[in-house]
Amino acid sequence: MEYRIEKDTMGEMQVPASSLWAAQTQRSLKNFKIGTEKMPQELIKAFAILKRSLAVVNCKLGKLDEGKKNAITQACDDILADKYPNEFPLSVWQTGSGTQTNMNMNEVIANRAIQVLGEDYTKVKTIHPNDHVNMSQSSNDTFPTAMHVAAVIDIEDRLLPSIQKLRDVLQKKVEEFSDIVKIGRTHLQDATPLTLGQEFSGYVAMLDTNMRQVKESLEHIRDLAIGGTAVGTGLNAHPKLSEMVAEEISNVTGKKFNSAPNKFQALTSHDAITYVSGAQKALAANLMKIANDVRWLASGPRCGIGEIAIPANEPGSSIMPGKVNPTQAEAITMVACQVFGNDATIGFAASQGNFELNVFKPVIIYNLLQSTRLLSDAMVSFCDNCAVGIEPVKENLDRNLNDSLMLVTALNPHIGYENAAKIAKTAFNDNSTLKEAAIKLELLTAEQFEEYVKPHEMTSPKE
Amino acid sequence: MEYRIEKDTMGEMQVPASSLWAAQTQRSLKNFKIGTEKMPQELIKAFAILKRSLAVVNCKLGKLDEGKKNAITQACDDILADKYPNEFPLSVWQTGSGTQTNMNMNEVIANRAIQVLGEDYTKVKTIHPNDHVNMSQSSNDTFPTAMHVAAVIDIEDRLLPSIQKLRDVLQKKVEEFSDIVKIGRTHLQDATPLTLGQEFSGYVAMLDTNMRQVKESLEHIRDLAIGGTAVGTGLNAHPKLSEMVAEEISNVTGKKFNSAPNKFQALTSHDAITYVSGAQKALAANLMKIANDVRWLASGPRCGIGEIAIPANEPGSSIMPGKVNPTQAEAITMVACQVFGNDATIGFAASQGNFELNVFKPVIIYNLLQSTRLLSDAMVSFCDNCAVGIEPVKENLDRNLNDSLMLVTALNPHIGYENAAKIAKTAFNDNSTLKEAAIKLELLTAEQFEEYVKPHEMTSPKE
Amino acid sequence: MEYRIEKDTMGEMQVPASSLWAAQTQRSLKNFKIGTEKMPQELIKAFAILKRSLAVVNCKLGKLDEGKKNAITQACDDILADKYPNEFPLSVWQTGSGTQTNMNMNEVIANRAIQVLGEDYTKVKTIHPNDHVNMSQSSNDTFPTAMHVAAVIDIEDRLLPSIQKLRDVLQKKVEEFSDIVKIGRTHLQDATPLTLGQEFSGYVAMLDTNMRQVKESLEHIRDLAIGGTAVGTGLNAHPKLSEMVAEEISNVTGKKFNSAPNKFQALTSHDAITYVSGAQKALAANLMKIANDVRWLASGPRCGIGEIAIPANEPGSSIMPGKVNPTQAEAITMVACQVFGNDATIGFAASQGNFELNVFKPVIIYNLLQSTRLLSDAMVSFCDNCAVGIEPVKENLDRNLNDSLMLVTALNPHIGYENAAKIAKTAFNDNSTLKEAAIKLELLTAEQFEEYVKPHEMTSPKE
Amino acid sequence: MEYRIEKDTMGEMQVPASSLWAAQTQRSLKNFKIGTEKMPQELIKAFAILKRSLAVVNCKLGKLDEGKKNAITQACDDILADKYPNEFPLSVWQTGSGTQTNMNMNEVIANRAIQVLGEDYTKVKTIHPNDHVNMSQSSNDTFPTAMHVAAVIDIEDRLLPSIQKLRDVLQKKVEEFSDIVKIGRTHLQDATPLTLGQEFSGYVAMLDTNMRQVKESLEHIRDLAIGGTAVGTGLNAHPKLSEMVAEEISNVTGKKFNSAPNKFQALTSHDAITYVSGAQKALAANLMKIANDVRWLASGPRCGIGEIAIPANEPGSSIMPGKVNPTQAEAITMVACQVFGNDATIGFAASQGNFELNVFKPVIIYNLLQSTRLLSDAMVSFCDNCAVGIEPVKENLDRNLNDSLMLVTALNPHIGYENAAKIAKTAFNDNSTLKEAAIKLELLTAEQFEEYVKPHEMTSPKE
Repeated sequence: MEYRIEKDTMGEMQVPASSLWAAQTQRSLKNFKIGTEKMPQELIKAFAILKRSLAVVNCKLGKLDEGKKNAITQACDDILADKYPNEFPLSVWQTGSGTQTNMNMNEVIANRAIQVLGEDYTKVKTIHPNDHVNMSQSSNDTFPTAMHVAAVIDIEDRLLPSIQKLRDVLQKKVEEFSDIVKIGRTHLQDATPLTLGQEFSGYVAMLDTNMRQVKESLEHIRDLAIGGTAVGTGLNAHPKLSEMVAEEISNVTGKKFNSAPNKFQALTSHDAITYVSGAQKALAANLMKIANDVRWLASGPRCGIGEIAIPANEPGSSIMPGKVNPTQAEAITMVACQVFGNDATIGFAASQGNFELNVFKPVIIYNLLQSTRLLSDAMVSFCDNCAVGIEPVKENLDRNLNDSLMLVTALNPHIGYENAAKIAKTAFNDNSTLKEAAIKLELLTAEQFEEYVKPHEMTSPKE
Repeated sequence: MEYRIEKDTMGEMQVPASSLWAAQTQRSLKNFKIGTEKMPQELIKAFAILKRSLAVVNCKLGKLDEGKKNAITQACDDILADKYPNEFPLSVWQTGSGTQTNMNMNEVIANRAIQVLGEDYTKVKTIHPNDHVNMSQSSNDTFPTAMHVAAVIDIEDRLLPSIQKLRDVLQKKVEEFSDIVKIGRTHLQDATPLTLGQEFSGYVAMLDTNMRQVKESLEHIRDLAIGGTAVGTGLNAHPKLSEMVAEEISNVTGKKFNSAPNKFQALTSHDAITYVSGAQKALAANLMKIANDVRWLASGPRCGIGEIAIPANEPGSSIMPGKVNPTQAEAITMVACQVFGNDATIGFAASQGNFELNVFKPVIIYNLLQSTRLLSDAMVSFCDNCAVGIEPVKENLDRNLNDSLMLVTALNPHIGYENAAKIAKTAFNDNSTLKEAAIKLELLTAEQFEEYVKPHEMTSPKE
Repeated sequence: MEYRIEKDTMGEMQVPASSLWAAQTQRSLKNFKIGTEKMPQELIKAFAILKRSLAVVNCKLGKLDEGKKNAITQACDDILADKYPNEFPLSVWQTGSGTQTNMNMNEVIANRAIQVLGEDYTKVKTIHPNDHVNMSQSSNDTFPTAMHVAAVIDIEDRLLPSIQKLRDVLQKKVEEFSDIVKIGRTHLQDATPLTLGQEFSGYVAMLDTNMRQVKESLEHIRDLAIGGTAVGTGLNAHPKLSEMVAEEISNVTGKKFNSAPNKFQALTSHDAITYVSGAQKALAANLMKIANDVRWLASGPRCGIGEIAIPANEPGSSIMPGKVNPTQAEAITMVACQVFGNDATIGFAASQGNFELNVFKPVIIYNLLQSTRLLSDAMVSFCDNCAVGIEPVKENLDRNLNDSLMLVTALNPHIGYENAAKIAKTAFNDNSTLKEAAIKLELLTAEQFEEYVKPHEMTSPKE
Repeated sequence: MEYRIEKDTMGEMQVPASSLWAAQTQRSLKNFKIGTEKMPQELIKAFAILKRSLAVVNCKLGKLDEGKKNAITQACDDILADKYPNEFPLSVWQTGSGTQTNMNMNEVIANRAIQVLGEDYTKVKTIHPNDHVNMSQSSNDTFPTAMHVAAVIDIEDRLLPSIQKLRDVLQKKVEEFSDIVKIGRTHLQDATPLTLGQEFSGYVAMLDTNMRQVKESLEHIRDLAIGGTAVGTGLNAHPKLSEMVAEEISNVTGKKFNSAPNKFQALTSHDAITYVSGAQKALAANLMKIANDVRWLASGPRCGIGEIAIPANEPGSSIMPGKVNPTQAEAITMVACQVFGNDATIGFAASQGNFELNVFKPVIIYNLLQSTRLLSDAMVSFCDNCAVGIEPVKENLDRNLNDSLMLVTALNPHIGYENAAKIAKTAFNDNSTLKEAAIKLELLTAEQFEEYVKPHEMTSPKE
């Protein structure tokens, strides 16, 4: 490979001749050969938005001249247009402040901006990574700002629409299934009846709750650290910079962002992200429950519960011909497990700040963005490839409903809990129906039984 | 021990002669000899409020006569007045719906209510545990209702005031310390200065955020499952019961509660509690960070950082005489670890619902209430025994401030990042001051240095 | 309450007149009003064994006279005989080295030993808590030693026998069920057959693995910190003390213990306990799987899988008469969730050591001992109240076996995977049997089908 | 893009014209657009070894002819030689049995083997993915086998050597630093002295323990599921196949593998991996502790502890010139957080097996291999870029040692704990030395003090 020489305050470095990055990125590549996880693209994009906004604001404040500003914003726009996918090669597992990724941004933007100015960045340094691109900034305020910007964009544009999509498909099932009475199950044991629509309404209500929780939790990460610079005091930054940058980012993204009211907190605490992750965990827990229900209800085809049918998307087994498995449910429950672990990582990492800085930033944002994407993608996949095609299996629904002993519960107000229990036990022991048992025990006449035990009427409260 | 005979639908049981509980409580005692953890008192109290409210509402609805209602409410009031601390002996580790604790409540209340009526509960069963005390109810809706009532009370009356208390004490320190300039630290390395008041303002801001998060998250658990009965359909309950009970509980407790909009969700999902636990985890993470800062700042007395002094509450060592340790910080960081684990347990348990019921309810509420109490108590203890007595150690604060090389950052706007770096490195290598290095390198005059580098001015942004 | 005055190096304290504890215990009670969790009894007992052994060894080494030694050992024996259950009232949430519990031990033992000498501990201090009971020790080496001693005793005497007991009961089921052919299930979908005995043999093999893992992991906590004193150097302790104490404890307990080869590790790392907790987590995961299988196999009675019956121990529902629930399975799966959370807490706490000491010791041992006890008790309860009474439900086992389409797998070697798949799909679509479909598709004759598809032969490999 | 048509039992699929994969891989690509995480390369390699071994064994058993066997083994060797890096594009988030990756392997190997035979796989299917490449196998036994093979290789070839490497470098420091006496610290407070070598010996001992734990835990995953086929019974496999394959894999890899004694366990439990992950967590906890010590000891340069110096690898700050940060320590502590979360995910996923199969296999192996690689890489990076260059800072070590008040502990055996405490407190209050305080209090003469208090002698026990 061909190299050129770049230097930083520590000296010279050989850098690939054609790369836009410079010495500090190269040092990081050399010093942090850990894992295969690169800093997430969503974060790189958020960083480009941030650096762009800072150039605009620094220009407005009279600190950066118009020419440099234009060159820097063009460079950022190029990054946002995906023109430099290979210029951000750094590992997640680097310095805990993300300084190296901040410098990677600064170097690439500076060199690209020099190009924009029609100059050769291997020869002149008209635009300096620190003095111009990083003007009035520190990694300590830019990195957490980029974390928040990335999270808000990803959650608003990816996660919330995915919840909505799945919720809407399930809501259609609620309506379609509203008249199908089925047996309920508690403790995995037969219980009193409900409609299949009611069962699915629980799923819709869960997702509605999760949507509210995610939205609420998101409010806290609209606060941006920018303007805090190195330790939160705002040294070397203009007093108005913070609010102006928050406003500029809001304009560029169309999302709401604010200057964090306390910058010391913003650099050293990640309570906002921990809280969002908690909301994602609550979503993951509900998704695991919903997906488990779906696969259990679809279990069989002949030796399970078999009350619903799900789409057969692929051969299920490499040895058992004709087998169809609930693979979408499996993918989403695996994602739920991952989100649980990610949440543990985030909480732990967030607790480890010292003094003016928390240096677990890359691992925190890596996990949050992984959870966000996995939940989003898995809900869409589950929705399109499974939920949308769920169909009731009437034959099994009806058989189970009619066989159940728990219809006896409808008799409590008429003959009391203890007599009702006797009927259920007698039917179970005799392998008979409830009606037969009720008559045998002389607790009810056939007519009374039929009047009192109407499964459909058991699916709603009565005066 | 002396026994009497009680029976339930499964037959007779020997019960301690003097106990108010009856057969089903006894069966649970016999069958679940697991651990030493009893069902939390907070939950028992919430259950008593709930059972009381149901008697009132069932009477209003014309289902329960005035006499029985009065007896039942009296029994509940006795429980709430702590008259029967030994009547609720069941383990957390029982049936996952909490049925046995629901029956323990029903049995004790029924027998005590019979006493209230002036009768002998060992002879007559004027008031039946299922037909009267549990009227229009199921464990499946009462237990999660009691969980939510207990959580709201405990969080509003215990957790939030504890956060407020600690926050207020720290806010006083912010004011007291507002003029004390000190060196900042990032990556544990010397950084640019801030005031000690600013450092503490970050802690206050964190607790303010946590308070908002906990309050927001709490809104979701104001929704009560009651009225859903066995599977969420409300079978055997009056259609208005749910809202009437929520209103009655609100009146009794002075807290806001609502009927859950979807009862299927309310029985089988614990998204509300998972979300609250996430908010508690964010609090725990901040507390760990704050307590760690306090003990590091107080480290020494002679070989550490030593910038603050904390109260000496007890001899610190059984072997090292005169040692004083940051024991309150240790207690609260241990609590934080416990809360992290509890949050993992809650999320996992909440994901395991099947069909119409989640049967991990006791473990979920045990962990939530433990976290709530530990966080509350630990904050009060830390506040009263440590935070309130924090004092600056001026001598060390000043020495560190003046020694630091990172004051050089103030020179960036004047001589550029690279020249500033040269000064810092020269001072480090020469073991000299920054001023000496600046002059030696001929980058600044002494006058210029003194004009540009004023630590106090470095603690706020400038135009 | 009546008080007496005790003092320590910090001054005087009012102590309940009748208590054996003295000033430092009282300070801790006053300063740490956190939670309801007391230091576990198992740890107190282990501490008594340790203090006893140290008196014996210090006497042998000529540092403690025979009279004091005898008084101290008598005091320890009294504690071990449960004579002073109320003398160890301290919270888990105290100093992170457990110093306060070490001093609680020292104070109670000293005062009881003074009594043994026939003197009045409120007047004379013949035996000093620090100088005699804590001779050659520090909290920093005694507390982790007591942690290890308690863990080894609890795991060997409680956990391992409980695993063995459950394993043996399940092994009996393996033998009883060895001829019962049933349908297998993968992905919750019908699969190829196996015997019920084979299914249970998996559970036995899991518990055998867990037993080996727990035993192996236990080897690491046989190493004791004692002799390290304050920072691991052994200052103020005799060079032979460590090995002599390990030997003495081994003799007293009948368990194997060693002097830890590196005392610096022993004070500041809890890798041994983290590893044991990992083994317990693997056990918890298997127990959750086994208990889930049991409750799913027992689901019904009419609308589930219903292939096994489990004992009906209590009425299952407060509203649905005659319902029987898999409550033991629920208790053990809740315990599994708790163990997962405890393991998270332990790992996190164990990572937080600094320099010569980890100050998260109480939370670590609290969680380990809770996991140990809960797993032990829950396995015994599940064994005695559920596993022992598991019975096959032949009617359902046979129906499911004969209905299944996956018996088609036996045809792969004869007609290939793709033809076999055609038969399965045809039978599914036609709602016919496999034989009917095979004949319809002209892929096999009835005779060939019967020769190839013999469920019992499908339960083992063939040449 | 150009396509060709491939088909499976579900019908035709358009597949990229040049790909070796066929219909089922394509279906998975279409149905599982979830996340960016591909099935790990280590697993693909292990699968190739497994498929190769099965071809060899099936040939030996007379089931597969020599020609097909040679073609298949050649295809596997090509994969192992990295010739087809783009042929395994499937997501981790697919079916929970890994069936789709098993079929991806089967399809690619089959088509490549057809090429080896000199034929055109787009036209003829001489070698069938199911009937030949997957002969005598199921995803249910091959996937967990590949998991175990990958884990053993990765842990033996990557993780263990990395632990050893770091341990050896630290052991050199133990020797280099064996005569440097320094102050110890417990509770972050000054304690009694030890040598810097002793401090580092604790780290070495921790890593030695972790190495033993990982090695022990590894024994359990040498057991392979292969031969269990679909549900553990070995249907369609030769009775000797399992042991022959284990032996063949052992020969090919040079690692020890066995046929799992119970195949039902092997398919449905992941206790072996959970246990290994627990050992990795214990390692992560120790690494966090070690890395934290290193960065705290190196804190400063002027306002921290500053007792060691670590290499300056890169500019530490984008705003503070000349700052050097402990970036390697930060990377490894972030990795530790990730491993904690991964361990939580693994334990949870491992608990979720049902009946004959656990369908959380991909998420389990993804997390285990990520932990393995991150721990390995991070230890090597920390070793090469930090640990190897650690140097003592004598000036600070000496100053701290001499200032400390805890040298007073050496006086306990001479004047008792309480008198020693008085000296320490007097020195603290007077801001004097211990000697001055001792004399002032008339507890010791200067000569006695000097005789008793010799820091170097305090670093080891004495008779």
